[in-house]
Amino acid sequence: MTGEPRQMEELSRAESLRLLSTVSFGRVGFTIRGLQAIRPVNHLMEGGRVIIRTREWSDLVAVAGGGGATVAYQADEIDPDLHLGWSVIVRGRVQAVSDADEAARYRERLSTWAAGQRDHVLFIEPEFVSGIRLVEATASPAVE
Amino acid sequence: MTGEPRQMEELSRAESLRLLSTVSFGRVGFTIRGLQAIRPVNHLMEGGRVIIRTREWSDLVAVAGGGGATVAYQADEIDPDLHLGWSVIVRGRVQAVSDADEAARYRERLSTWAAGQRDHVLFIEPEFVSGIRLVEATASPAVE
Repeated sequence: MTGEPRQMEELSRAESLRLLSTVSFGRVGFTIRGLQAIRPVNHLMEGGRVIIRTREWSDLVAVAGGGGATVAYQADEIDPDLHLGWSVIVRGRVQAVSDADEAARYRERLSTWAAGQRDHVLFIEPEFVSGIRLVEATASPAVE
Repeated sequence: MTGEPRQMEELSRAESLRLLSTVSFGRVGFTIRGLQAIRPVNHLMEGGRVIIRTREWSDLVAVAGGGGATVAYQADEIDPDLHLGWSVIVRGRVQAVSDADEAARYRERLSTWAAGQRDHVLFIEPEFVSGIRLVEATASPAVE
């Protein structure tokens, strides 16, 4: 035992995607001109896809153009003091929602982060999904 | 006006780093074997550096070896319902804390995410720092 109060449990793909659908925002990680970026965005889940809304000038739109690039998407619900909760990470290609009606429908359900800025609707097709849950350690000895 | 209730304010580097020091965890974004990854970690701020603690088997340790690689680090405090709060992003090189005494001192102050796993202490030297604060929109018209 290390005296640490938490244990980490791996979550299934289905449970990870379900948890993702219970929160309204996360963070997208991507590379732009060879540099790492992380940007908080709002999301919703539909048809197994992560739908996000982002500002027009966003570097992400450049990434999503030209057939899309692979990004990472992460959301969590972690108690800031106890550090108990869950974290889910999705990796997949990001692309623009090209159908205008579909994009308009998503816009109604997804708020933007700030006023006065035009935005695009993008989706991430999850290829790799992983999730962990941090729970209080039980009395049984931890595997060393 | 778009009817959205929030406005985004840019934060100074100093204010961004100060806000980072008021929370105990964030998310590191990096590339491993050409794939994007985002991992939640605990942090503390010292001497303008972001100090993080991560598991020995973590891909991040591989990234931090060999002189370090550039990663993105993001933390936020955002109301899950109102979406008001702040988000800070740091970009910089991640490297291992090589001095054993220094690493031990950081370990005392940084808890790990889960029990029974050995870990390393790394630091990120902020090169690029940006931050935003999301506040309620005022009655004055937003810049279009």
